[in-house]
Amino acid sequence: MPAAQNATLVSVALDAAQAPPLYVQLFEQVRDLILSGRLKPRQRLPSTRALAKDLNVSRTTTLAAYEQLMSEGYIEGREGSGAYVAAMLPEDLLLVRTRSDGVAFNAQALDGIDDREEKTQILPFNSSGQDVRLFPFAEWSRLLAKSWRSPRPELLHQQRGFGHLPLRRAIAAHLRELRGVECTAAQVVITSSAAQSVSFLMRTLLGRGDTVFVEDPGYPTIYRALEDLGAATVATPVDAQGFTVPDYDRPSPAPSAAIITPSRQYPLGMTMPLARRLEVLNWAEATGTWIIEDDYDSEYRYVGRPLSALMSLDRSGRVIYVGSFSKSMFKSLRLGFIILPLALIDRARDTLYTLGTSASANAQPALAEFIASGQFAAHIRRMRRIYSERQQSLREALDTELAGLLEVPRQSAGMHLPVFFSKELAARISDTQARVLLAGADVTAEPLSPHYKEMKPRQGLLLGFAAFAPDEIRAAVLRMAQVLK
Amino acid sequence: MPAAQNATLVSVALDAAQAPPLYVQLFEQVRDLILSGRLKPRQRLPSTRALAKDLNVSRTTTLAAYEQLMSEGYIEGREGSGAYVAAMLPEDLLLVRTRSDGVAFNAQALDGIDDREEKTQILPFNSSGQDVRLFPFAEWSRLLAKSWRSPRPELLHQQRGFGHLPLRRAIAAHLRELRGVECTAAQVVITSSAAQSVSFLMRTLLGRGDTVFVEDPGYPTIYRALEDLGAATVATPVDAQGFTVPDYDRPSPAPSAAIITPSRQYPLGMTMPLARRLEVLNWAEATGTWIIEDDYDSEYRYVGRPLSALMSLDRSGRVIYVGSFSKSMFKSLRLGFIILPLALIDRARDTLYTLGTSASANAQPALAEFIASGQFAAHIRRMRRIYSERQQSLREALDTELAGLLEVPRQSAGMHLPVFFSKELAARISDTQARVLLAGADVTAEPLSPHYKEMKPRQGLLLGFAAFAPDEIRAAVLRMAQVLK
Repeated sequence: MPAAQNATLVSVALDAAQAPPLYVQLFEQVRDLILSGRLKPRQRLPSTRALAKDLNVSRTTTLAAYEQLMSEGYIEGREGSGAYVAAMLPEDLLLVRTRSDGVAFNAQALDGIDDREEKTQILPFNSSGQDVRLFPFAEWSRLLAKSWRSPRPELLHQQRGFGHLPLRRAIAAHLRELRGVECTAAQVVITSSAAQSVSFLMRTLLGRGDTVFVEDPGYPTIYRALEDLGAATVATPVDAQGFTVPDYDRPSPAPSAAIITPSRQYPLGMTMPLARRLEVLNWAEATGTWIIEDDYDSEYRYVGRPLSALMSLDRSGRVIYVGSFSKSMFKSLRLGFIILPLALIDRARDTLYTLGTSASANAQPALAEFIASGQFAAHIRRMRRIYSERQQSLREALDTELAGLLEVPRQSAGMHLPVFFSKELAARISDTQARVLLAGADVTAEPLSPHYKEMKPRQGLLLGFAAFAPDEIRAAVLRMAQVLK
Repeated sequence: MPAAQNATLVSVALDAAQAPPLYVQLFEQVRDLILSGRLKPRQRLPSTRALAKDLNVSRTTTLAAYEQLMSEGYIEGREGSGAYVAAMLPEDLLLVRTRSDGVAFNAQALDGIDDREEKTQILPFNSSGQDVRLFPFAEWSRLLAKSWRSPRPELLHQQRGFGHLPLRRAIAAHLRELRGVECTAAQVVITSSAAQSVSFLMRTLLGRGDTVFVEDPGYPTIYRALEDLGAATVATPVDAQGFTVPDYDRPSPAPSAAIITPSRQYPLGMTMPLARRLEVLNWAEATGTWIIEDDYDSEYRYVGRPLSALMSLDRSGRVIYVGSFSKSMFKSLRLGFIILPLALIDRARDTLYTLGTSASANAQPALAEFIASGQFAAHIRRMRRIYSERQQSLREALDTELAGLLEVPRQSAGMHLPVFFSKELAARISDTQARVLLAGADVTAEPLSPHYKEMKPRQGLLLGFAAFAPDEIRAAVLRMAQVLK
């Protein structure tokens, strides 16, 4: 790249001794060069590689700085095609120059921190979802535009209702077909996430202090949400078949509820066999317990047909189905849903009347068409093939590189693989320590033990493979091996 | 219209003696004609007027039935241009035919009910928001499409952050300019509504049972949300200047908070003068009370410059600003925001980490550009002129038609006008009774008295004028007069 073009970056000087991380220093100095006009709009910037070399810092540092400059609108372009100073800077950026008082500076720094939170690069084996690089955004954007060009009035006013009716119809049809759940749109409530579905159901079903049975190990997020709602959670052990039915005589204030993951236990990943399912349903009917079936990841089963949902076996109307689009679409969509037994529809309407909905109407019509037109199912099928290969790559790499250190259960479903520490490894290191060491090697690995509430925790890691190509997976496993051996 | 074309509707027979409302009977019979193929795709239907005449029912009935058929995709077209059988019926509709079991039928009826909730025609003087007929949806749809064609990764993963940074920057700039609030993006948290903002702040600031001062009269929704969170609400009288500062010595467990509406008291509509604002700020500083400033409707002031927000006067960092886009954009967008004092940023981050956000990322980049490009401000300016005329039309019509019965305060702001019953009218009828009678005349009027919590309620009505053209307003006032005289 001609020297003239990035000569201005010669003025950049980073000091590892100073408080702000190097990437923040770099981000701030380049930003100032742009705001002061010494870097001109549309001017090309050196590649992150070249710049890292010039400044003698790691490429992670230059990448992080560029990512932040990009996300704040100072520079444009993507890795590969190169980065340029933004053609037009939002006016409010220019204001920053004039605001050199403590607040602005302080806030600027905070922006940095917060911004990082938002967009930390997704490293293997982050389990936060699907490979968004493979999502059909062109089509998605077309559907959004179409649905808002001249929206029906009801789309603009709905606020205390169950959600956009065409979406509820599409979900009902999808669930009937793929999960065997006999339901109609009238039973579907659109929510903003699985967690919001649970808190919505708590408010609909239970009073403060009522008992909620949760799986142990399970979702820390759900534990927190329940505590936040003032529910009395009862940790219930999980065995090889999943949720273990509590003692019938166990004194528990009715009404109570249990939140379980029969399709694929979270985090351990086993599927609840039919016999156990019937046992759970009998218990629910006998004790008047509501069963909240969290059907997360059910789309991704790589061997054989997916089992029908627990709700499809329910004859007593005690099962409530909770689903989400965070993993089948993308997390920030913030759309989930509940399938209610008919008997609960009126109570749910009262809850909505009191609390209103937090589900935005914005994406609902587009999602309705995405599902009804079959594109959603097609996307899932495509991802299923891809994720299956990726899980295979992960297992093979682990068997080759980490045999003896990690125990890898035979699972062919889901978007993450739980692996357990061998005695030898567990003796050397805890899974939470491992997380820190692995982070140093650009490997994200969620420790298993924090998912235990009262049971004796097992040491292990949850490895999300869905978002990473086979070569990314193999490379990351090699880095893991170096750290753990 | 040629007889042949709607001959099939001759078979329709409604029975007022039967349980389902007439519009549901009509909806179901037309639906069956369509599903059975006796009404062909693209076939024209009689106008709601003609059909009402044929069937000897009110036009409201035929309108309601058509609205429901339309919203469920059985028929197309709009009032005026006439209605047609949909060219293509969603496949799941066809399933309905084969599902004549109790569940399906029952659920179908429930759909009807729920659907009505969603899309009850917005009648004057519904105060649920702006005139969506005037919103630039073509542009909005363009921005949505643009923002999702190739979204930045951070847009897809953000879940526990403060929201989309460009939107936070745009809001901060907008607030600095229009409301005089010295803030930066780092202080902005994107939420899904004002109510969610309040519950988010309660979780950030207070523990269960802490005291929250609320205005009386005020927002029933907020009362409910607070009770739901287990806060101890203290109803605080509102006088001619708005929120009255509680007795300093009043024993109240710190930390506590007060939720107030200084720009325009809800529901009474007066603006808090400077002296009272300073009094409130002194009280907050002296007692360590958090002030949550709900700045609803502040965009709409028709005489003089809008007063700066209370937060802009705050020197002790006790004021938290809460805003929403429900009225400036449209309700179902479900986007609101909080401006935090710098001192609260870290605590808010913890809350978000625990609870996650319910604000969808879907509309955030589009809204960011809508604001940053100045289109939002332009839309507000345009609406301001229009709403000002409408408020004028309403006041004039009320003075002409209902002088002596209703007392109309001199207000030139907001999207609704509170009117008070004269002694004579109050002696004849309560505002809640009036609501029912007016509904019979296709007039929606929210009664004032339910907004009082402990204070002696005044009888009155809240008349939303923003969503209705002057002639709609005058016609509705005439209907009001007939009912109330």
